[in-house]
Amino acid sequence: MTNDTNVTWHEHQVARSDREAMKGHKGCVVWFTGLSGSGKSTLANTLDHRLHGHRIHSAVLDGDNVRHALNASPGMLRGVHGDDFAERFGLGFSAIDREENIRRIGAVAQLFSQAGIIALTAFISPYRQDRDRVRATMAPDEFIEVFVDTPIEICEQRDPKGLYKKARAGEIKGFTGIDDPYEQPLSPELTLYAGQKSPGELVDDVIQYLQEREIVRL
Amino acid sequence: MTNDTNVTWHEHQVARSDREAMKGHKGCVVWFTGLSGSGKSTLANTLDHRLHGHRIHSAVLDGDNVRHALNASPGMLRGVHGDDFAERFGLGFSAIDREENIRRIGAVAQLFSQAGIIALTAFISPYRQDRDRVRATMAPDEFIEVFVDTPIEICEQRDPKGLYKKARAGEIKGFTGIDDPYEQPLSPELTLYAGQKSPGELVDDVIQYLQEREIVRL
Repeated sequence: MTNDTNVTWHEHQVARSDREAMKGHKGCVVWFTGLSGSGKSTLANTLDHRLHGHRIHSAVLDGDNVRHALNASPGMLRGVHGDDFAERFGLGFSAIDREENIRRIGAVAQLFSQAGIIALTAFISPYRQDRDRVRATMAPDEFIEVFVDTPIEICEQRDPKGLYKKARAGEIKGFTGIDDPYEQPLSPELTLYAGQKSPGELVDDVIQYLQEREIVRL
Repeated sequence: MTNDTNVTWHEHQVARSDREAMKGHKGCVVWFTGLSGSGKSTLANTLDHRLHGHRIHSAVLDGDNVRHALNASPGMLRGVHGDDFAERFGLGFSAIDREENIRRIGAVAQLFSQAGIIALTAFISPYRQDRDRVRATMAPDEFIEVFVDTPIEICEQRDPKGLYKKARAGEIKGFTGIDDPYEQPLSPELTLYAGQKSPGELVDDVIQYLQEREIVRL
């Protein structure tokens, strides 16, 4: 027992620069945006794997780990949290729901970045305003928008989840690129032509960018 | 250019165990709960600082970094996102808003843990059901509930933000411990008597627990 329990506690905080010094690289957000099937998630995971090989601390945020919990649908929340809760906070596909989906992801990506992690996000994020709002919350060099510019013909040909087929058949409404717009970034930090190069080559381009900006040193 | 652009891309994923092997420790969530002024945030930051000194990758989630963005109030969202959006997704202090506040924090803490980070959360989180719901989303050893058991007399004496004074004066309604309940954990992994020991001593207890559970090795 000590005598300092009734006075204001002295507090040590770890500065962001200290975390980055320990990890040997900076934190940032690499924000992949593009059509469904354009290759965002594959690119994010391939980049994550490559960075990990260099002992760089990264993390992928994509539908697989965000849609189950943080941005769960009303249906997923209903059983645990009740109907009113699920209706209010669960996310569907309305304009306002999509806006909140991207807002929450941006906020979490920033928390990762502040912790010194390279956060890799892989979401269609079709609306320019939503992406720009995320960018506006971050430092100038912290948000790296990567446009995965794959022609829709190739995305539709790949159609890994069969979603284009369903959208063409009218079974899915408001599908990006079919009956809902995809707004291309006007000045992304990087554009990847994922119909022309392999994932490995495209990831090389991202890593080169991260090196040039002195976010990582390999 | 290669030939594999029109076929299903081969994807490497980094397993959680690979991340943990690189960092040399496991990911988990250390969930501090207790009254306002009990010392949660100081303990989380002191623990973070100590772990950082051992080259362990941790991150603090507390009001300072969560209330500005992820769990922003309606007033904070209104200017950027519009009134309807702010009303629906902004968080105030109603029962349902508090429930969503903790749910989002739990989801983000889990994302950190899955990325191999030791997430340290410092929120009053007064309701047992909310904490237990977060616990239920995680693996058995992943959620470490730490009850910061400081007598309310000491919390009120410290009153670092002057909140007890305002609550006693009726200027704040629904204040935990005054006119809203704090439900103590029934079987927390750890209880810290923050009215009796210094932060350094209490943090020693948490680190000892993490070592015993083989989450970290010092």
